Amino acid sequence: MKYSERVEQSGCPVERTVDIVGGRWTTLIVSELLRGTKRYGQLRSVLTGVSPKTLTDKLRELEEHGVVTRTVYASVPPKVEYTLTEKGQALDVVIDAMRFWGQHWT
Amino acid sequence: MKYSERVEQSGCPVERTVDIVGGRWTTLIVSELLRGTKRYGQLRSVLTGVSPKTLTDKLRELEEHGVVTRTVYASVPPKVEYTLTEKGQALDVVIDAMRFWGQHWT
Repeated sequence: MKYSERVEQSGCPVERTVDIVGGRWTTLIVSELLRGTKRYGQLRSVLTGVSPKTLTDKLRELEEHGVVTRTVYASVPPKVEYTLTEKGQALDVVIDAMRFWGQHWT
Repeated sequence: MKYSERVEQSGCPVERTVDIVGGRWTTLIVSELLRGTKRYGQLRSVLTGVSPKTLTDKLRELEEHGVVTRTVYASVPPKVEYTLTEKGQALDVVIDAMRFWGQHWT
């Protein structure tokens, strides 16, 4: 079963959200992009410890789920930028709630 | 470096939250316990696809982080119940935000 099919099958909205944006790196990528558009290299340097493969995979998954758009500029070398879609921006409530909990309970 | 030390080292509250309650099963466990106290067997049956080892490990981590309390009743066979602490109950805002996003965007 494909990943996207598994996601669609869950009747629980919390589970569907977790399947798209759960996980450590995905959450941290969204959190960073809520501050504004970032280039791949900027994401790599701010997300301490992420491997290039993991970052690329997670960004591709977010793109497939319509959370992130990827823009390639025809410069030399090519510049690639990642921006949250409206769907991605709507995750600000989730990230804000996580930030609040982290500040108050950890 | 121990897991708990790594958690304490992050200066980012979103990252600290992700390190404690990020991840698919942990989020779903907290989501279930927000509905009320559950026995181990009840959690296993409602969390479709979780392995006994994963469920036990995740519950232990949540207990170590003060999110869940484990109560053992001296019955035969012994009954073990899991309840959210005040710290765990405070995650309702995060779970509610995830439910809302899942309902509206997936």
